[in-house]
Amino acid sequence: MGAGNLLYAQSGGPTAVINATAAGVIDAARKHRKAIGKVFAARNGILGALREQLYDLSGFDAKMTRQLRATPGSAFGSCRFKLKGIEDSRAHYERLIEVCRAHDIRYFLYNGGNDSADTANKISQIASQLGYGLHGIGVPKTVDNDLVITDNCPGFGSAAKYTAISMLEASIDVEAMYESSTKVFVLEVMGRHAGWLAAAAGLAGKKADEPPQIILFPEVPFEEANFLAAVKRSVDRNGYCAIAVSEGVRYADGRLLAEAGTRDAFGHAQLGGAGELIAKLVKDKLGYKYHFAVPDYLQRSARHIASKTDDEQAYAVGQAAVQYAAAGMNAVMPTIRRVSGKPYRWTIEPAPLAKIANHEKMMPKNFIRADGYGITAACRNYLEPLIAGEAYPPYANGIPTYLRVPKKFVKRKLAEYSIADK
Amino acid sequence: MGAGNLLYAQSGGPTAVINATAAGVIDAARKHRKAIGKVFAARNGILGALREQLYDLSGFDAKMTRQLRATPGSAFGSCRFKLKGIEDSRAHYERLIEVCRAHDIRYFLYNGGNDSADTANKISQIASQLGYGLHGIGVPKTVDNDLVITDNCPGFGSAAKYTAISMLEASIDVEAMYESSTKVFVLEVMGRHAGWLAAAAGLAGKKADEPPQIILFPEVPFEEANFLAAVKRSVDRNGYCAIAVSEGVRYADGRLLAEAGTRDAFGHAQLGGAGELIAKLVKDKLGYKYHFAVPDYLQRSARHIASKTDDEQAYAVGQAAVQYAAAGMNAVMPTIRRVSGKPYRWTIEPAPLAKIANHEKMMPKNFIRADGYGITAACRNYLEPLIAGEAYPPYANGIPTYLRVPKKFVKRKLAEYSIADK
Repeated sequence: MGAGNLLYAQSGGPTAVINATAAGVIDAARKHRKAIGKVFAARNGILGALREQLYDLSGFDAKMTRQLRATPGSAFGSCRFKLKGIEDSRAHYERLIEVCRAHDIRYFLYNGGNDSADTANKISQIASQLGYGLHGIGVPKTVDNDLVITDNCPGFGSAAKYTAISMLEASIDVEAMYESSTKVFVLEVMGRHAGWLAAAAGLAGKKADEPPQIILFPEVPFEEANFLAAVKRSVDRNGYCAIAVSEGVRYADGRLLAEAGTRDAFGHAQLGGAGELIAKLVKDKLGYKYHFAVPDYLQRSARHIASKTDDEQAYAVGQAAVQYAAAGMNAVMPTIRRVSGKPYRWTIEPAPLAKIANHEKMMPKNFIRADGYGITAACRNYLEPLIAGEAYPPYANGIPTYLRVPKKFVKRKLAEYSIADK
Repeated sequence: MGAGNLLYAQSGGPTAVINATAAGVIDAARKHRKAIGKVFAARNGILGALREQLYDLSGFDAKMTRQLRATPGSAFGSCRFKLKGIEDSRAHYERLIEVCRAHDIRYFLYNGGNDSADTANKISQIASQLGYGLHGIGVPKTVDNDLVITDNCPGFGSAAKYTAISMLEASIDVEAMYESSTKVFVLEVMGRHAGWLAAAAGLAGKKADEPPQIILFPEVPFEEANFLAAVKRSVDRNGYCAIAVSEGVRYADGRLLAEAGTRDAFGHAQLGGAGELIAKLVKDKLGYKYHFAVPDYLQRSARHIASKTDDEQAYAVGQAAVQYAAAGMNAVMPTIRRVSGKPYRWTIEPAPLAKIANHEKMMPKNFIRADGYGITAACRNYLEPLIAGEAYPPYANGIPTYLRVPKKFVKRKLAEYSIADK
């Protein structure tokens, strides 16, 4: 029996490999029996922790853990719910400590992005104020790849691989048909603030004439005339133009294209996301037949084409988080350090949550080509190892055998808690 | 040296496995040296045949053919160009025979859907009228799965597999987050007339409460109130609702949703495709947060997750087409016959082009659930074997190593031919 139990929770948007992190946590906890007793997982992230809805993962054998590792989504449920500062949300923080106390939880692992790092840090602080010994550990996860210090964020590599492959496959399709059909294809990719996933589309081709011929980054102000000229150049030269557009692309004045009320040739307001708007703009101004794709959630849940690097790193940060907890560390996050680029070698190292919370890593300037429409060799060197290797899930009858976690919860010890009332 | 050369051409929308058919043609032709000399491929389908733009595939060794087999799109180019009746398009038909004569082409293999079967049939007829011995063979290909006689169409199984897996993965994502985020997810799938791909989304789950909870088929008239009640039932019961909607879904009066000028609560005309319209309708009338995905070309080019059954059948119809040609058959198409369902066994058998051209196979009534929103066990039994097995392409640096065919053409022997002038 360990010194205390461990509570693991998933936060924010799911990824293809967040459950690999969960599997890393479960497997590592078994190796630290002296420090760690039971492993619980909160249902729907911090909401379940507040409500005392806890999965008991003792029943997870090696087979289930392997299946969990190969399952996308957030297997225990996740949430969009940000705890405010300690003074504003004191009731919630105190409730969390009360839940931990009731179930002898001495380790709290919060798997998410910036906000989750912040929350894990605050929970650790308030536990200390209340005289309850609790190790708060953040575990990195986000397809946005915007956490600082770490080389990259688990979840990003798989979404990046999906995006690059989708761009390549659709472009090959368009290339075959442009003479008598679609000449301009637009792929809309996630990323409201940073263009990491848009950049990943750039891995579909290597030379300037290879697809995508144009990438629209949120970091580069959208200039209509310049963009249309680039589209026309590609159609004149290659017969077609494949475009990756970030959902967060903006005009120079900061307005999102998708919210700027663009109007068509007839003065009608154009609705829709950035991909549709860009496609219709091209049709309106240049007359080319277009198609556009919006993969939406498909790109962050595509476990069927997960990156092996990503799967391994996601698993490793889960393992490391448990090791840090068992070693008595507090208010830290395992981060990935790139030891060498070619061949790609990496290690996991702890970083203080305070240095990660509330910071955002944008694309470096030298990752975007001088004309603003492509990625540089430096960017390619950074991205390529992150999508390397294929970590295929097992299949039955043509469909992956993803795990659905049985909804069996630990017996409650406390009174009900209404989140909305606080 | 054979009795004559063979011309292969690809037509209509590309698929993930049409090049597996091309590989089957090339491999089989090598085994029929007595009958078949060189293998040519027309650039951009029938357009290249008319223009005498012919790839010489003699240089395709076993390695290149394997790579071709694992490449999506139409490697030699395709087109949307329908030859009219013999009287209306006589110049084109005569030109085709002239090109065949110039290059000693005695076998014409046209890889496509209904229209291509019709064209291959007519070319065979006019050759006979003009006293030129030419074997016209149709080779089936279409993600729409709407050819008659054949059990299914090569290309469909892979698009179906992509659709089922995408539906499953996105639904798992939504299921993890519905409490505090998206409650309704809509996946728009291809299929203007027949709901075969919409039906394939139904393979994501097995029970009525599993995703997709609702499928909207083009075969079932859309009834707004009934649909909204079904969405609400699913959200009440499951917490969320995953919907697959065919781009061809229609009102009872035959109008496409996507063209019917739907209006929102404020009387504004709603633009966009069926997926976006359905999502916004749900938001408008029920208030649920929504996301929608439009995979568009991604679903027909997703070679990275091709069905093994589909890859094998695509290759087999290419081989069979050559065998039929070498055996002196004319105006036929290799079709797939289902010998048994469980286990799935199939053979390839010839069928007359005249019986295939200009017919369309719709979903049988007993494949759609009584409430109109799901598939039946009969449909599942039909579909499951078609998505079985994974035929992964080779990778380098995290990206599939798809073949780009070098643009080297046979030396022209005829004067230039302007298609537009005729």
